[in-house]
Amino acid sequence: MPLDATTLTTLTSEALQRCDDLAALTEEPGRITRTFLSYPMKEVHTLLSMWMREAGLTVRVDAAGNIIGRLEGTQDTRALVIASHVDTVPNAGKFDGVLGVMLGIALARGLQISGQKLPFALEIMAFSEEEGVRFALPFIGSKAVVGSLTSEMLEKRDANGVSVAEAIQHFGLNPFDMVNAKHKALLGYLELHIEQGPVLESKNLALGVVQGIAGQTRASLTLTGKANHAGTTPMNLRKDALVAAAQVILEVERFAKSLPNLVATVGMIEVTPGAGNVIPETATLSLDVRHLDNATRKRAVAEILDFAWQIARKRDLAFKHEIKLEQNASLCDEMLIGFLGDALEDSGRKRFELPSGAGHDAMIFADVTRTAMLFIRSPGGISHHPSESVSVGDTRAALEVAYLFLEKIASAPAIIWQ
Amino acid sequence: MPLDATTLTTLTSEALQRCDDLAALTEEPGRITRTFLSYPMKEVHTLLSMWMREAGLTVRVDAAGNIIGRLEGTQDTRALVIASHVDTVPNAGKFDGVLGVMLGIALARGLQISGQKLPFALEIMAFSEEEGVRFALPFIGSKAVVGSLTSEMLEKRDANGVSVAEAIQHFGLNPFDMVNAKHKALLGYLELHIEQGPVLESKNLALGVVQGIAGQTRASLTLTGKANHAGTTPMNLRKDALVAAAQVILEVERFAKSLPNLVATVGMIEVTPGAGNVIPETATLSLDVRHLDNATRKRAVAEILDFAWQIARKRDLAFKHEIKLEQNASLCDEMLIGFLGDALEDSGRKRFELPSGAGHDAMIFADVTRTAMLFIRSPGGISHHPSESVSVGDTRAALEVAYLFLEKIASAPAIIWQ
Repeated sequence: MPLDATTLTTLTSEALQRCDDLAALTEEPGRITRTFLSYPMKEVHTLLSMWMREAGLTVRVDAAGNIIGRLEGTQDTRALVIASHVDTVPNAGKFDGVLGVMLGIALARGLQISGQKLPFALEIMAFSEEEGVRFALPFIGSKAVVGSLTSEMLEKRDANGVSVAEAIQHFGLNPFDMVNAKHKALLGYLELHIEQGPVLESKNLALGVVQGIAGQTRASLTLTGKANHAGTTPMNLRKDALVAAAQVILEVERFAKSLPNLVATVGMIEVTPGAGNVIPETATLSLDVRHLDNATRKRAVAEILDFAWQIARKRDLAFKHEIKLEQNASLCDEMLIGFLGDALEDSGRKRFELPSGAGHDAMIFADVTRTAMLFIRSPGGISHHPSESVSVGDTRAALEVAYLFLEKIASAPAIIWQ
Repeated sequence: MPLDATTLTTLTSEALQRCDDLAALTEEPGRITRTFLSYPMKEVHTLLSMWMREAGLTVRVDAAGNIIGRLEGTQDTRALVIASHVDTVPNAGKFDGVLGVMLGIALARGLQISGQKLPFALEIMAFSEEEGVRFALPFIGSKAVVGSLTSEMLEKRDANGVSVAEAIQHFGLNPFDMVNAKHKALLGYLELHIEQGPVLESKNLALGVVQGIAGQTRASLTLTGKANHAGTTPMNLRKDALVAAAQVILEVERFAKSLPNLVATVGMIEVTPGAGNVIPETATLSLDVRHLDNATRKRAVAEILDFAWQIARKRDLAFKHEIKLEQNASLCDEMLIGFLGDALEDSGRKRFELPSGAGHDAMIFADVTRTAMLFIRSPGGISHHPSESVSVGDTRAALEVAYLFLEKIASAPAIIWQ
């Protein structure tokens, strides 16, 4: 039985108020900045722990500083995890990560109010770290839960020379207890998150089901020609690295537009010697290519590199490239995608799926269990910025759809969720 | 009567040896760096003065630190000036400027050896400053001679806070005597200079007659779109400033190639925010356009700006530009160009004319007298670099042609050189 309208409205308003409350807990006055186990995270734990207990959850904090509220099921000790992160980028908005955790608690509270029982356990997790700001090591929280946080990672140091392990000790936790942070019995994983992009807004939709998290290739391309006097060197005797780079930049756009959902970006360019009256000798470009299908992404990178190589050959320049990052896509679970889509339709909304171009904790969990994500429209596509926002109506819709999703799994034949 | 082959060979070898000798006089051990009235310039004066006297010239130093050797004519006190500069850029080559002065002295020595008399006076000038390194104020030397050095310019200060006037005093000269540096009776101006570009080499020619010094426009162009996440923003929802800039860069090349002798260069590009995973919000480009014909140059700039404006409109970006420098072309004198061309043909060489894309002292003199320039092939087009060079054969050819040129003016009906 779905949540009644009044409960939905009350829980939505409470969840958004709590995003405001947490936004006040920051390392930097006047801006929201809350990195891994920084001192404001203590108070975050105090509030989360209180809210989780009020929702009927049993609270624990693991060795990575994740705070977890658990509700036992009627038949199965395995847990469906509903989670996101509570750390932030510097000068962040209020909703990235935090909203997902608040909606998780609201869902537990909804079950409590309605008296609905789940056959499996439910765990609401607030990850201590996802953004990678303090240690340039993202996903510390979710990696601890899936058991992929290595001892090498625990030795990484921040700008002040403090290691991850030391930060954990300073927070009053025991890094040697990390083995117990690893979850022993997972049933699945759901994350509710703002889209951080403009797609839902452009489609005039509140919600979308995430197909998976796009794979990503990052590379650096360098074209080398010959520096020469801009006044004395005729056009036909030049080897201008920047003009060649311009052709590559346009090809990156052209190729990306030729395939659905492919994105490719040159975000950085550096030219030497870099004087107005000297023909550029070198041009170095960054390349960022993402797609949900690994083969498509790899083909795109190969085609762009081949184009750059051909341009270099035509213009008698040297060309080299370096792959900086190669990360495969992480697909969401077909069954859970189906349940989320059904829940959208049941609530009178359009079934809509989209890829995620940014990374999320869900992709860490995809290695060990079924995952699903529900995206909530981001006004203006804005995120990682104080003006990041979400509407009350969209938040309420997310809560409604996620609750329907929980009921769908719970009432499905046991064979499915087992 | 042309110089005999042995004299030509001897004078060429002497001129090149003297370029070596002056290269040893530098502010920086191991590199050639000789800025306006720096201490090595004292010794330069000592050597120049000696060489000028040996060539039968009467030597004077003016208030701007120019050193001038004069040979009186048989009929006219007005002077044909043969000149170039003896200051250098930091880490310079041996020949830029210096070779022209050494060839001027060699021409005087040639007249002395052959006993040839000129109806007009001949003045060999070594300008103290052309490069603009010390005071970011180029052409101090030649401006003093034509009388365009203002008292405001004399107050400009170098990196150590020393003014031009103080530098002149420290060198032992009197800046209040600047009025006497202005030449009272000019007949014309000839400058022999290495090309500092690849044109003569590409045409397999030792020498070329300069048509004039190209006019120049320098501008800054800024395209402004919208920064967004490179992973979450689909291609069709982007306002990427760099992709628009790439179209402008290619148009700059395309348009410049469409008109003879037009050169246009984007030498600098800066993108913000400048991160690999963020779509560029702004792209700022430098633009350098040069042509001997002012109307052609202005049309090129207008067409490029119009193209950028259209691209910005198509992509819904903002566009603005700023003109940083607008300098009209300085044409050489048709009659002197003709005499130089005749001299080339008389010596069995091809008559060939080309524009100069770089500035020279000749353009300062063009405001007050007839000017001419003879370019000498630059191997590899290389200049402003220690590997700058010139061949013995090409230097000898320049000396031969310049001597024939002197004879041609001298033997022309007096109406012409009067």
